[in-house]
Amino acid sequence: MKKRLVVLLTVALFIIVPSVVFGAEESNISAIDTVWVLVAAFLVFFMQAGFAMVEAGFTRAKNASNIIMKNMMDVAIGSLVYFAVGFGIMFGADKFGLFGTTGFFATNITIEQLGLSIPLEAFIIFQTVFAATAATIVSGAMAERTKFSAYIIYSFVISLVIYPVVGHWIWGGGWLYNLGMIDFAGSTVVHSVGGWAALVGAIILGPRIGKYTKEGKPNAIPGHSITLGALGVFILWFGWFGFNPGSTLGFNNSIGHIAMTTNLAAAAGGVVAMMVTWIKYKKPDVSMTLNGVLAGLVGITAGCAAVDLYGAIAIGVIAGALVVFAVEFIEKVMKVDDPVGAVAVHGVCGSVGTLLVGLFAVDGGLFYGGGFSLLGIQALGVVTVAAWTIGTTFVLFKVIKKVNGLRVDADHEVTGLDINEHGSVAYGDFQMRNVDVLGK
Amino acid sequence: MKKRLVVLLTVALFIIVPSVVFGAEESNISAIDTVWVLVAAFLVFFMQAGFAMVEAGFTRAKNASNIIMKNMMDVAIGSLVYFAVGFGIMFGADKFGLFGTTGFFATNITIEQLGLSIPLEAFIIFQTVFAATAATIVSGAMAERTKFSAYIIYSFVISLVIYPVVGHWIWGGGWLYNLGMIDFAGSTVVHSVGGWAALVGAIILGPRIGKYTKEGKPNAIPGHSITLGALGVFILWFGWFGFNPGSTLGFNNSIGHIAMTTNLAAAAGGVVAMMVTWIKYKKPDVSMTLNGVLAGLVGITAGCAAVDLYGAIAIGVIAGALVVFAVEFIEKVMKVDDPVGAVAVHGVCGSVGTLLVGLFAVDGGLFYGGGFSLLGIQALGVVTVAAWTIGTTFVLFKVIKKVNGLRVDADHEVTGLDINEHGSVAYGDFQMRNVDVLGK
Amino acid sequence: MKKRLVVLLTVALFIIVPSVVFGAEESNISAIDTVWVLVAAFLVFFMQAGFAMVEAGFTRAKNASNIIMKNMMDVAIGSLVYFAVGFGIMFGADKFGLFGTTGFFATNITIEQLGLSIPLEAFIIFQTVFAATAATIVSGAMAERTKFSAYIIYSFVISLVIYPVVGHWIWGGGWLYNLGMIDFAGSTVVHSVGGWAALVGAIILGPRIGKYTKEGKPNAIPGHSITLGALGVFILWFGWFGFNPGSTLGFNNSIGHIAMTTNLAAAAGGVVAMMVTWIKYKKPDVSMTLNGVLAGLVGITAGCAAVDLYGAIAIGVIAGALVVFAVEFIEKVMKVDDPVGAVAVHGVCGSVGTLLVGLFAVDGGLFYGGGFSLLGIQALGVVTVAAWTIGTTFVLFKVIKKVNGLRVDADHEVTGLDINEHGSVAYGDFQMRNVDVLGK
Repeated sequence: MKKRLVVLLTVALFIIVPSVVFGAEESNISAIDTVWVLVAAFLVFFMQAGFAMVEAGFTRAKNASNIIMKNMMDVAIGSLVYFAVGFGIMFGADKFGLFGTTGFFATNITIEQLGLSIPLEAFIIFQTVFAATAATIVSGAMAERTKFSAYIIYSFVISLVIYPVVGHWIWGGGWLYNLGMIDFAGSTVVHSVGGWAALVGAIILGPRIGKYTKEGKPNAIPGHSITLGALGVFILWFGWFGFNPGSTLGFNNSIGHIAMTTNLAAAAGGVVAMMVTWIKYKKPDVSMTLNGVLAGLVGITAGCAAVDLYGAIAIGVIAGALVVFAVEFIEKVMKVDDPVGAVAVHGVCGSVGTLLVGLFAVDGGLFYGGGFSLLGIQALGVVTVAAWTIGTTFVLFKVIKKVNGLRVDADHEVTGLDINEHGSVAYGDFQMRNVDVLGK
Repeated sequence: MKKRLVVLLTVALFIIVPSVVFGAEESNISAIDTVWVLVAAFLVFFMQAGFAMVEAGFTRAKNASNIIMKNMMDVAIGSLVYFAVGFGIMFGADKFGLFGTTGFFATNITIEQLGLSIPLEAFIIFQTVFAATAATIVSGAMAERTKFSAYIIYSFVISLVIYPVVGHWIWGGGWLYNLGMIDFAGSTVVHSVGGWAALVGAIILGPRIGKYTKEGKPNAIPGHSITLGALGVFILWFGWFGFNPGSTLGFNNSIGHIAMTTNLAAAAGGVVAMMVTWIKYKKPDVSMTLNGVLAGLVGITAGCAAVDLYGAIAIGVIAGALVVFAVEFIEKVMKVDDPVGAVAVHGVCGSVGTLLVGLFAVDGGLFYGGGFSLLGIQALGVVTVAAWTIGTTFVLFKVIKKVNGLRVDADHEVTGLDINEHGSVAYGDFQMRNVDVLGK
Repeated sequence: MKKRLVVLLTVALFIIVPSVVFGAEESNISAIDTVWVLVAAFLVFFMQAGFAMVEAGFTRAKNASNIIMKNMMDVAIGSLVYFAVGFGIMFGADKFGLFGTTGFFATNITIEQLGLSIPLEAFIIFQTVFAATAATIVSGAMAERTKFSAYIIYSFVISLVIYPVVGHWIWGGGWLYNLGMIDFAGSTVVHSVGGWAALVGAIILGPRIGKYTKEGKPNAIPGHSITLGALGVFILWFGWFGFNPGSTLGFNNSIGHIAMTTNLAAAAGGVVAMMVTWIKYKKPDVSMTLNGVLAGLVGITAGCAAVDLYGAIAIGVIAGALVVFAVEFIEKVMKVDDPVGAVAVHGVCGSVGTLLVGLFAVDGGLFYGGGFSLLGIQALGVVTVAAWTIGTTFVLFKVIKKVNGLRVDADHEVTGLDINEHGSVAYGDFQMRNVDVLGK
């Protein structure tokens, strides 16, 4: 009898108690994970306000309401479309390593299949705000001349299929995921997709009226509110603390490290871009410095969990210098009119940041004794994502151009998209320097 | 002796250990709950910035500082008054199902009485920022013509007693709470109270000079900064992720779901409002689209935890369409001048959103087989809250009008409240289109 | 045999199980602590946007880009320098009670040495954003006339050594820490350091052209955007919920209390500043009310965890009244031109708020029966920090003046720092009231 009690006790002690303890433990960990991911999702959502302010501030007053509307619709349409279709393509059961086939309307998919410790809907809202970010990058490059209806169609399609397919390849169990590509928070998945789509859009649209002289020399077209633009950059930097550390998809001890790498790269990017412009143009340029911060942030996004603090600074330095030259190259050599520098910031620095993981990753990077294997995989990912995005958006914008028209009439462009596309102006109480702004 | 040891061990195993485990467990859960509720409270606090930007952006530059001051005082006065009195009326020991009688100055009340897992002061700060939200809704509808001193008195009284009484009825153990009314995060408690107070205030004030022609046709009076207005909407959407998911008052597994319903309703509201204006006015209207987003958010607030994702989209669609017609009805038929559409967004969509819970609640909604019972309770709540708020604010504004005066002098209104009420202008460096703006 | 089993069981029960339980427990608590501190750090980071908006909004349009650049560089340079050196001086192994000697580049320091429950890098990012806050306070007081290059040097040095030394004294195990000085979130460490540096900078620079008449009477130079200034104050208030409650460096049950004291002091500061200006100037002053909110926040920062709710209101009331008189005293009696009132808000209210802990601390405060001991220690801290900061920044600015030049040329000041220091203007589409603004 005593023996049985002892056995009972032993069982209780080594089986029941630990299971109670660890079961409870697990549920607490899931709670912490969920709170963390949701707070991060909210911060990433807020980046939409940052994009809206950056893009509006760096373009002209006569088009400010239009930019705002495009950003608002990127989130609104994106949220609905990604819920219905995009999420399933991105994270549903894999087909050919290319796309997902379940999970549409948040059905037919479980957190066990996804290997998550958080509720499905917490994961979906987190992914939704990422999808909206990819979409909204494009509006800056296509600013001040795109038909609103054309933009709506584009925004719908990128959240529906173009972005989710890339997401599936790298994050959703697709072929690049299986090769071991490292794109932790989306330098390639989110930013390069936005950047390449922006490039294609800006090329097909053509430059704004007055951007280039007859000889092809670019004119500067300054933004209408550097304060709002700068506010946008601060908001984006703030939101990036959700974007990168939140991409852990749950608590782990590296989130402090990721916050540090993110911040150091942003800081280095800003300082270096400022220095480069100071040397090149004799004065520290404001909008380029702000773009340098964004370049550092975009650049570190792929490797924020894989590099050490020195690697983060190096990536920030490279991205901050690169963005200045990339903006010039795109504007002067390629003659592509990208009003806010979205292609340089998101396309170029997103791609280069992804490649740099192949050099700086503590585990597998070339500079840390990892050889060329990771670098090769990163390069493959960067190139194929660029090819997919450029290819699909080329078709998309060409079809939109044919079916709906892509660009507003010249007189509408001159007098402003706000009054012509939306019937109102953004700053009705203010005297403008150019009467065109008010549509007269 | 061994027997006693075994007994001792058994006691230890089944009594002491579990209590240690679950005690600790509980305290961890309480920690997570507290962090979650506080972060949510901070997000809700930030909505004040959103309201300030929306209300300032959608009104004229000559009154921008005045709007800002009113919003700032709503939080400042509201925080003090709600701490001293309002919270006690809302959550103190119930009297007649109508109001609370303890808890003033955060005393004589315990978290056990309130059934909370979080410290009392974490709960009070969360409730404080909600109270400030209800108060601040009104400033938009009464913008551009109200005496600052009159507004201060109003703001004091709504946080002192008008809002807390409604809060007691529905959230504080009052009669509607006991009937089972569902108003999870306050479509009725917060938004409809603000909206109906706004309606009464706007009616008693009368329209702004120049709003209506002699024939009673409304003139459009555009806002002075659509970019700031849009920034405000983004901030509000962001803050709403604290407002709705935080109203769990602690971690639970539905917070991801609530974030999803909130986001989908906002998205649907914005898209539908845009489409309706596109059809009605031939162009997608910017400020109405922004109001559509807010309408979706206000509409889903009551049912965000009770409806499924399709219900959330349906509520967003209904609110987004409704707000366009409600704004027109209030302006053209009722001839009430509400500069920012606060009555339509918060009063109408708050009330309708509460009713829709009676249709779409998964548990108890008419469309989900729950019969008419819940719908009836929701309707009773909506109507009685409207009656209480309209009745008390009618008396309040009439008394203020008699004792203090409610409206500024006509010449002060024409030259602007900033210069006349506060002795300064908001944009001293800018040339205004209307010299009146600078007070000359 | 049974005996040995019983012994084994006993050991298991009282040694192994608790260690498993508490070990797990601890790791959960550490997870919660980390999430809390990181979220708080992100909110504090966002305060940079608040400072940028306050400082830009309250100064002239022709210098708005320059202010923005200075704020951006405070964070960017500060993040790099503080990581490399500042953090080590502040929290490294103590030498003479005066400075730290390890921890440079986040090496040679452990969380055990620091007594932390969170990962080292989570702590460093939290401290980094605090350092950036101290630095950025100064840019407002030195606005509209400082050479950008001079400011960059200042910003580098304050984050490198001036701020970290004070931080070491009070937070890093230095001599004031050992005396028991209470400066929970940094009224003295952060705000008074920024405030006194601002005072020295403003004095050495001299007033802006046109600020004083020949008779020494001050002219009002209004800011260019009260809406952006107010947005900045809302952002700062929001971020302060990270600043104060996050300074627990981990979850504890007082975080709700700290959020309450912070909010009540801010509210009281705003209300009282408004009332004082209403009485003094016959009209409630907008920018002073906004400064009153900030004064309340700065004032409560030292004692936010040590005072009760009534003490918090008292501190807010005192700070809100004091700031009005301090601004006047500095402008009219001292003839120091501080465009945004940074010295009064951060220097004066930071120091007074620290002293008030000696009166209002529930444990040790004079008004709570604690005698004069704590008050004396607080006074000693306030005075020595002021002496250190004023002394070092005096030398710093004098050296900068000699080596690099501190102030822009008079004609550059008149036509604006934006065009002259950075080659662009902030509001290119708007007509300015003063043609100087656009540099012509």
